[in-house]
Amino acid sequence: MTTSPISEAPSGGAPLSPTERTRVRRLSERAATDRQALYDLLDAARICHLGVIVDGAPRVLPTGYGRDGDTLYLHGSTGAVSLRTDDEICVTVTHVDGLVLARSVFHHSINYRSAVIYGRPRLVTDPDEKLTGLRAIVENLTPGRWDAARRPTRKELAATAVLALSLDEASVKTRQGPPGDDEEDYALDVWAGVLPVREVIGEPVPDPRLRPGIRYSEA
Amino acid sequence: MTTSPISEAPSGGAPLSPTERTRVRRLSERAATDRQALYDLLDAARICHLGVIVDGAPRVLPTGYGRDGDTLYLHGSTGAVSLRTDDEICVTVTHVDGLVLARSVFHHSINYRSAVIYGRPRLVTDPDEKLTGLRAIVENLTPGRWDAARRPTRKELAATAVLALSLDEASVKTRQGPPGDDEEDYALDVWAGVLPVREVIGEPVPDPRLRPGIRYSEA
Repeated sequence: MTTSPISEAPSGGAPLSPTERTRVRRLSERAATDRQALYDLLDAARICHLGVIVDGAPRVLPTGYGRDGDTLYLHGSTGAVSLRTDDEICVTVTHVDGLVLARSVFHHSINYRSAVIYGRPRLVTDPDEKLTGLRAIVENLTPGRWDAARRPTRKELAATAVLALSLDEASVKTRQGPPGDDEEDYALDVWAGVLPVREVIGEPVPDPRLRPGIRYSEA
Repeated sequence: MTTSPISEAPSGGAPLSPTERTRVRRLSERAATDRQALYDLLDAARICHLGVIVDGAPRVLPTGYGRDGDTLYLHGSTGAVSLRTDDEICVTVTHVDGLVLARSVFHHSINYRSAVIYGRPRLVTDPDEKLTGLRAIVENLTPGRWDAARRPTRKELAATAVLALSLDEASVKTRQGPPGDDEEDYALDVWAGVLPVREVIGEPVPDPRLRPGIRYSEA
């Protein structure tokens, strides 16, 4: 299991940001080398895991996010502890593409794409940028809804904190393809290959209070 | 968007662990009150996001995990930076169940279950517990494969670090059900409801080097 890519610091990506901690330490062939891979992953996934330090200990929380150019936007209540930090944060986005079944337990793995972004977030105060950020977050989570639903009021905007995080220090790591077994294990009588994993959106479930005659339409 | 549950510190769950940081700060009705909810979520999800502190900054990495009773097991190469810590870690497991489409952008949300576990991990040195931990990890990620594939050799075991994390300080937070709109917005001509999200396993893709005659069989 030591080769399980997902367990091995997907913190690489020198070409994206040549800092020490985003240099790939292990399995560097899995480090994506272009910025487009970062954009593609961020645009494909829905949620991120936000890492902050609270009282000296790490805290990891799931949250929505959105991307606009080279800026990642996060949001939350103005009272949220995790958004009150002025310190560095880490945002990780992971997309699982498949389960890798090897002939040995040791080489079982996951096909995945993962981005790790470090930086000091900036509290967005400009009203226009705040809307840009919120729009990016809503559209990333639920495409088409910024135009379909009622826009935020001034009061709602005031209650919402929006953070901007530069994508300057970021890295992408991926693992794709069939298992890599030890040479002698290929003779074993064990099925090996990949089980593709994908996310499916089911039939829309209308709100019990939905007014009659309003139909769901895809974005 | 401030009510987006997933953005609001899913760190609650007093009944699971009555420490200050696992007490629910916001939307406490979403804190699951029983340990079974924690077990169910951990058994339903495949990967976690591990939070550690490296050089004073938070780092969040995706990784596999397994549960055995009230112990969570993590693994990695013995050389991995993120496993060399003796400090506190945070493990977060998130399962997205649906997209919540409200009549206002502000009340868009996610139906989800999320567990946050804090603690100081223990390096597993006992050979039997190491196997227990690895088995839990493999079975959580790829059920049935511990028995189907070749078991770890002594050399492979030596190269694999296994960490045990107690589930003592843990919390679960969930959001389920239809959107909660502002009363005056229910009159709007906007579709509202939930788009269920689920993970689907596709057709198995055999390893190009799979020996003829070996068929995939589900666990």
